[in-house]
Amino acid sequence: MTADPELDRLAYDLDRAHVFHSWSAQAALDPLVIAGGRGTRVWDHAGRSYLDFSSQLVNVNIGHQHPAVVDAIREQAAQLTTIAPSTANLARGQAAERIVARAPEGFSKVFFTNGGADAVENAIRMARLHTGRDKVLSRYRSYHGNTGAAIVATGDWRRIPNEFARGHVHFFGPYLYRSEFWATTPEEECARALHHLERVVQAEGPTGIAAIILESIPGTAGVLLPPPGYLAGVRAICDRYGILLILDEVMAGFGRTGRWFAFDGHDVVPDLITFAKGVNSGYVPIGGVIISDPIAATFDERVFPGGLTYSGHPLAAASVIATLDAMESEGIVENARRVGAEVIGPALAGLAERHRAIGEVRGEGVFWALELIADRETREPLPAAAMGALKKDLVARGLLPFVQDNRIHVVPPCVVTDDDVAEAVSIYDAALGAL
Amino acid sequence: MTADPELDRLAYDLDRAHVFHSWSAQAALDPLVIAGGRGTRVWDHAGRSYLDFSSQLVNVNIGHQHPAVVDAIREQAAQLTTIAPSTANLARGQAAERIVARAPEGFSKVFFTNGGADAVENAIRMARLHTGRDKVLSRYRSYHGNTGAAIVATGDWRRIPNEFARGHVHFFGPYLYRSEFWATTPEEECARALHHLERVVQAEGPTGIAAIILESIPGTAGVLLPPPGYLAGVRAICDRYGILLILDEVMAGFGRTGRWFAFDGHDVVPDLITFAKGVNSGYVPIGGVIISDPIAATFDERVFPGGLTYSGHPLAAASVIATLDAMESEGIVENARRVGAEVIGPALAGLAERHRAIGEVRGEGVFWALELIADRETREPLPAAAMGALKKDLVARGLLPFVQDNRIHVVPPCVVTDDDVAEAVSIYDAALGAL
Repeated sequence: MTADPELDRLAYDLDRAHVFHSWSAQAALDPLVIAGGRGTRVWDHAGRSYLDFSSQLVNVNIGHQHPAVVDAIREQAAQLTTIAPSTANLARGQAAERIVARAPEGFSKVFFTNGGADAVENAIRMARLHTGRDKVLSRYRSYHGNTGAAIVATGDWRRIPNEFARGHVHFFGPYLYRSEFWATTPEEECARALHHLERVVQAEGPTGIAAIILESIPGTAGVLLPPPGYLAGVRAICDRYGILLILDEVMAGFGRTGRWFAFDGHDVVPDLITFAKGVNSGYVPIGGVIISDPIAATFDERVFPGGLTYSGHPLAAASVIATLDAMESEGIVENARRVGAEVIGPALAGLAERHRAIGEVRGEGVFWALELIADRETREPLPAAAMGALKKDLVARGLLPFVQDNRIHVVPPCVVTDDDVAEAVSIYDAALGAL
Repeated sequence: MTADPELDRLAYDLDRAHVFHSWSAQAALDPLVIAGGRGTRVWDHAGRSYLDFSSQLVNVNIGHQHPAVVDAIREQAAQLTTIAPSTANLARGQAAERIVARAPEGFSKVFFTNGGADAVENAIRMARLHTGRDKVLSRYRSYHGNTGAAIVATGDWRRIPNEFARGHVHFFGPYLYRSEFWATTPEEECARALHHLERVVQAEGPTGIAAIILESIPGTAGVLLPPPGYLAGVRAICDRYGILLILDEVMAGFGRTGRWFAFDGHDVVPDLITFAKGVNSGYVPIGGVIISDPIAATFDERVFPGGLTYSGHPLAAASVIATLDAMESEGIVENARRVGAEVIGPALAGLAERHRAIGEVRGEGVFWALELIADRETREPLPAAAMGALKKDLVARGLLPFVQDNRIHVVPPCVVTDDDVAEAVSIYDAALGAL
């Protein structure tokens, strides 16, 4: 962290000249330069530092630059960075072993990909081939990745200019604050959402439906915690009609909720689990599918028609091993649970009492959303201009926020401390006050 | 390279228990354990080593464990492994700068992805949005990746169980040895292939076609060098009908042909270039799209609807910088060109004289194919059982081959030496003799 503002300028200029950015119109971008980080902080070359309450794209669950993970990457880099997926490699096998150890009984195999999108692609592929069926059902208000099938499985606006895959159908999920079902209690929202889903299944033709894919907790769509019984209810519908259940744990998995998987404790076992992000905090790109044994067995004698050059990449695998071991030995998942329940939850509730712009606070672990509104009666979202100003103000006050639509997602690394939360909440408080 | 056969056993057992493999039926797999490597060699834990004439999946262009690239990864790992794509980061900008420096005039921006498949996805997305058209044309005998649109753009069998994207049309490309056009000379094959393509364009409706995507040299499909004039002819057809040309340089690019891009010297400038593999030899997963300025400008004021968490990953970017710098300063691309022209080509021609099973030798740089046949008259491919036995024998003799269908692809790292080639050719010779 030596101050060298020249490097900031160079990084900025090279970015503007040569880097094409995700999900953006390119002309007006004004990116923040980031040069380094540690734990819940990142900094630029000039000595400015920021408290990271975004975990970047909600992936840095273990915090920035965890020394054990950095060391593991450095050691594996010296041994063997990459090797073809057709070989066997110790780091790859050990990473798979550690991942299935966290999955429910009956999941023995992992198919590794480069990230969440191609994990979803391959899970959908497995489901279609295992069932011999075509259609895939997913929620409006969801995000599953940017590739062919993944982006069309997605339920947000990003699907619309990308509808070049076929066989996808969307349904509404439970979201009591903006209920699609005229419900007034969580129980009613749950029952009606399940009824709606079953009606869509029946209307689409159950025998043509391969899978229902759901984020266990829709993340970018708003940290939409399912009401108790919803996921188990979806499982029951799947079982009734011979449909597979894919739970997308790319954002919600590996500690974010204060549990290893977000679906843990929901009395549900999916058929396929997709993961990325938290499994190694994105230190090296990796994702994958955890496959239940009956689906894996489908491809014992039949060729699985999917694959990629970097499947089971040793450098990424080494970072998975170190990440999961450190999360376990340092109680990082437990920390997320405790801080969420004891510190973040109460602090955000306090914010909501002080600021009428906060319409709802929801979340668990280090996975929270503040829903900002212009009017508590109509629940009209806070306009985009105000959200933009708020985001700018938060950054100016030294906090990297995760802002999406009319929401602030409070999504720090799982290693966040009570003091970090206090600091962040006072920044949110000041920025909301200045609104 | 300390001998520890126990680790081999452990790696093998963990793989069989927990790792689901690409493009395979899982039950009968018997993967080779690989623990380390250097240059053109890899080895297991027990002290067995192999000469790598596969470059794994034709990605390790700079050879295994190039010290400058390993050092760059280790240094960047200590600074900052990952950061969101919305930020600016020096390594990311410098990697983009070095990539566009190798592209033709008029290409200023890079969109980074995790690999080749999502590079193709995003190039297709850009083409569709830039043109406002839908259909994408690609070759039979091609491979473009395993995700939604990429796998349906693919022209080999891997497309068939995966046809869940729409808007893709395939045509036949030039391949004189197995001409689809009853041609007998390269000139005739070229002219007829272009005529065929233009007829497909006309028959599909030119005003509905967004792009033609081609591997500059189809790789896994058989190292199918385009005859002189073919790529320029495709460009002319594109221009005639307002269609974009995407050249997929994932396998052929960054040194494989003895040039930076395989299309260099073909008198053609595409609109979009996809890359992965050789850009950093896959040491850290990365790929991307190099975007011509008019297409980039389409998204100056309009949101580009694509993106991913690890776009422009700093650890991967650092490895790109070091790779391209080392390839430049050590003359690695020139080495591939010289060895290909002076050593590999003549040596493979010699093999073809000695072995009637070799029907054709084709290639350039370190990108060659031996087409194996049962009969020189009918050109009937050597049966799968014989190919399997040959592959096994090559491995037993200490060479990692790239075997696809009825072909051996001779695709060593670009750093291959004359002695390596001599060793490999004597192994091919012995194995073909034992056939």
